Amino acid sequence: MIRALALPGIFLSVVLVDHSYAADARAGRQKITTCQACHGLDGLSKNPEAPNLAGQIEPYLVKSLTEYRSGDRKHETMNIVAKELSDEDIADVAAYYASIQVDVLPP
Amino acid sequence: MIRALALPGIFLSVVLVDHSYAADARAGRQKITTCQACHGLDGLSKNPEAPNLAGQIEPYLVKSLTEYRSGDRKHETMNIVAKELSDEDIADVAAYYASIQVDVLPP
Repeated sequence: MIRALALPGIFLSVVLVDHSYAADARAGRQKITTCQACHGLDGLSKNPEAPNLAGQIEPYLVKSLTEYRSGDRKHETMNIVAKELSDEDIADVAAYYASIQVDVLPP
Repeated sequence: MIRALALPGIFLSVVLVDHSYAADARAGRQKITTCQACHGLDGLSKNPEAPNLAGQIEPYLVKSLTEYRSGDRKHETMNIVAKELSDEDIADVAAYYASIQVDVLPP
């Protein structure tokens, strides 16, 4: 999205480029072919090393995938998988897993 | 737990020290005073940076806390919080959050 600001009277115009992307959970569902081997289509872990992702906090998922992609967060498999993801892919996949409804029984 | 092995006839004895600890979810509940500010007593995130922990995979939680404690995984707050935890604390806290029952509605 591109926003233009014009402040009349002081001959100033500024263009702000907004790189944010409207995350699309439905698109995300189409992009989790690799993810679901460990994290499931339902967001429930399929192995003891992989976390559940169902209903997970969306900004946390975006941050995790971004850190795996950059290598700031280390995990042999995730560093390889995340390297292939665009910002849009990350946003969509995070939106998909975050969108799964989860009910928690109070402990 | 300490296990002793004695193999008669070849004059060999080996002592294996087993550092594993029987995790105690009830003890864990008493140890999450700091955790619950961000992750809740119910394991549901209280801020957009913190993940939900309710029903999370136990070995994943143990690994995460151990990596935060060692500094292998970076997070300003978590590195400070985890530094104070013993192996027993980590096992108990992980067992507590993992024990919270979660129902997922299939997407």
